[in-house]
Amino acid sequence: MSLPRIAVDAMGGDEGVRVMVEGAALARRRHDRFKFLLVGDETRIKAALDNHPNLRGASEILHSTDVISGEDKPSQALRRAKTTSMGMAVNAVKAGDAGAAVSGGNTGALMAISKLALRTMPGIDRPALAALLPTLGDNDVVMLDLGANTECDARNLIQFAIMGSAYSRVVTGRDSPRVRLLNIGTEDMKGTDELRDAATILRKAAADLSMSFDGFTEADKVCRGDVDVVVTDGFSGNIALKAIEGTARFVGDLLRRSFSSSLRSKFGFLVSRPATELLKHHLDPNNHNGAVFLGLNGIVVKSHGSANAVGVANAVHVTARLLEENVTERITADLARVGEESLKMKRAPASAATTGDAA
Amino acid sequence: MSLPRIAVDAMGGDEGVRVMVEGAALARRRHDRFKFLLVGDETRIKAALDNHPNLRGASEILHSTDVISGEDKPSQALRRAKTTSMGMAVNAVKAGDAGAAVSGGNTGALMAISKLALRTMPGIDRPALAALLPTLGDNDVVMLDLGANTECDARNLIQFAIMGSAYSRVVTGRDSPRVRLLNIGTEDMKGTDELRDAATILRKAAADLSMSFDGFTEADKVCRGDVDVVVTDGFSGNIALKAIEGTARFVGDLLRRSFSSSLRSKFGFLVSRPATELLKHHLDPNNHNGAVFLGLNGIVVKSHGSANAVGVANAVHVTARLLEENVTERITADLARVGEESLKMKRAPASAATTGDAA
Repeated sequence: MSLPRIAVDAMGGDEGVRVMVEGAALARRRHDRFKFLLVGDETRIKAALDNHPNLRGASEILHSTDVISGEDKPSQALRRAKTTSMGMAVNAVKAGDAGAAVSGGNTGALMAISKLALRTMPGIDRPALAALLPTLGDNDVVMLDLGANTECDARNLIQFAIMGSAYSRVVTGRDSPRVRLLNIGTEDMKGTDELRDAATILRKAAADLSMSFDGFTEADKVCRGDVDVVVTDGFSGNIALKAIEGTARFVGDLLRRSFSSSLRSKFGFLVSRPATELLKHHLDPNNHNGAVFLGLNGIVVKSHGSANAVGVANAVHVTARLLEENVTERITADLARVGEESLKMKRAPASAATTGDAA
Repeated sequence: MSLPRIAVDAMGGDEGVRVMVEGAALARRRHDRFKFLLVGDETRIKAALDNHPNLRGASEILHSTDVISGEDKPSQALRRAKTTSMGMAVNAVKAGDAGAAVSGGNTGALMAISKLALRTMPGIDRPALAALLPTLGDNDVVMLDLGANTECDARNLIQFAIMGSAYSRVVTGRDSPRVRLLNIGTEDMKGTDELRDAATILRKAAADLSMSFDGFTEADKVCRGDVDVVVTDGFSGNIALKAIEGTARFVGDLLRRSFSSSLRSKFGFLVSRPATELLKHHLDPNNHNGAVFLGLNGIVVKSHGSANAVGVANAVHVTARLLEENVTERITADLARVGEESLKMKRAPASAATTGDAA
């Protein structure tokens, strides 16, 4: 079976064409079923392809020199969707010329362009940005939303749980991923009305949704490995993700500083290099690159702007797995299984009875 | 000048009397100006004092055997405030028998008891929980609110900035602490209405408030050392704090696992022990113990439930510094300096619905 090809915005990302093309070539070396539509400056793409003969028969170029910058507002990006490499890559998915798009450009712009071109799936109110984070367990954990929606109601959170669960099934192979809502405590009364209402409905519907839902989790337990999907609004999700990334970097910096604090420590560092390399490998964001916009009629993957070629290759892999496993169809099927009650649910009225008692 | 004495809830914390008394003794060994009111079971406190003769002339015992448990709801804790060690320690501050109280018990209960007994300061709508976090710079960063208020409006955030800034001046000695609001991006348009409104007002008022306010910061930059105060609502603050704590622990676990992955790594670990000990020291939560409820007519410090004696001693130190530096008076003075505009600002209608409960 041939895989639908993947459109790569070759102009996105901090280092542009060279890294994006090298990333595609690396991914193709691991699985030769991938084919690519490389969108960007033809001359520069051709030059980059010279170093990667394995891509030659497996890629087509779609020429564009117009680029969305990091400073462009979503509204500006939308106006230039027809001429920019990012817009053209996403539009290729819309037109059926590609099965999925990957970009390392401006997240807000990519979200706006993707929403307009691909529209949200039936039954989904808002798409969400989902990423994989490393854990102490065997599998990565899926966390969403990571910043696409600043404020969310219970209905949004339930839809995120369904989408995250479908993604986790692809990643972990589990039939019934362990789903939790991110909260500031695990007791039923904790958090906002939206969280408590979402928990009540998910508890009832979990069996029909092939997920194992067990209420709330806290931000210090995301990476323990005993949860497969962590669901949250985009504000809290972005705070949690960046706090995790920042702390991993912070500890890395402290470690480096500690190891260079004395001659003995420097020597120890050299001896224990395999250990620190293992740690570095585990924590390198390139090894967890590729955040997915879930809930659209098509797959769009955001590669980190500062990703290297290995990072881009990982984002391409994520994309390919989502294509192979038909994640969009899985979400549609799950949505069909949820009761009317949840899907037609109005915005939750403030459930005054259950609000906090410490006021 | 004699320092007002510090009331210690000797029954709070996971390990109770022994650790609380040992912590007080350690703190007293560093500064012999501290005097204590030890609140709890007289027999057990006396037994613990046998090992710490340096506390004998410097402490008085207030007998109580009733304890607030980790499971007690704030409402239950309030009803037993007159008989429990936690309630009696806080009430000693109210009565003027002590200048401040320290407890390792249930956070929600401590918040509720403290609010009822000490009331919020004039000009402050809601107290906030503030803690010190380690940074790559020379000083710890103050972060607040960490869970006392689930939802906050712009007016709350501004008051938190004023309180956090006063606390930071005590910790860093800076005349004009660098204050930022926690957000999901640094551009003016990012985040919620509450954050944008608070930023607009703080930008205008910062000069009068002896703080250097420069808009937003993101969760990955909290520990970089270039910000002194990070202001946020209690939900996001709790998520950020726990994500930071959890990731530090996660990286520590990975490091341990990496170092025991081969004989060579194990040997390297032994050689580089001074380096890893330095790291461990920097990340040990006991070295940053002591979260403060700011905005009350009196000082109440929460010690981590699982803190050891060194941790308790650090919480006592935090308490003593706040007493010595008259932080409550400083906040009052700062509030008096803010323009009418900010203080008489109406609550933002969007977030007027729910009252927060303590974490």
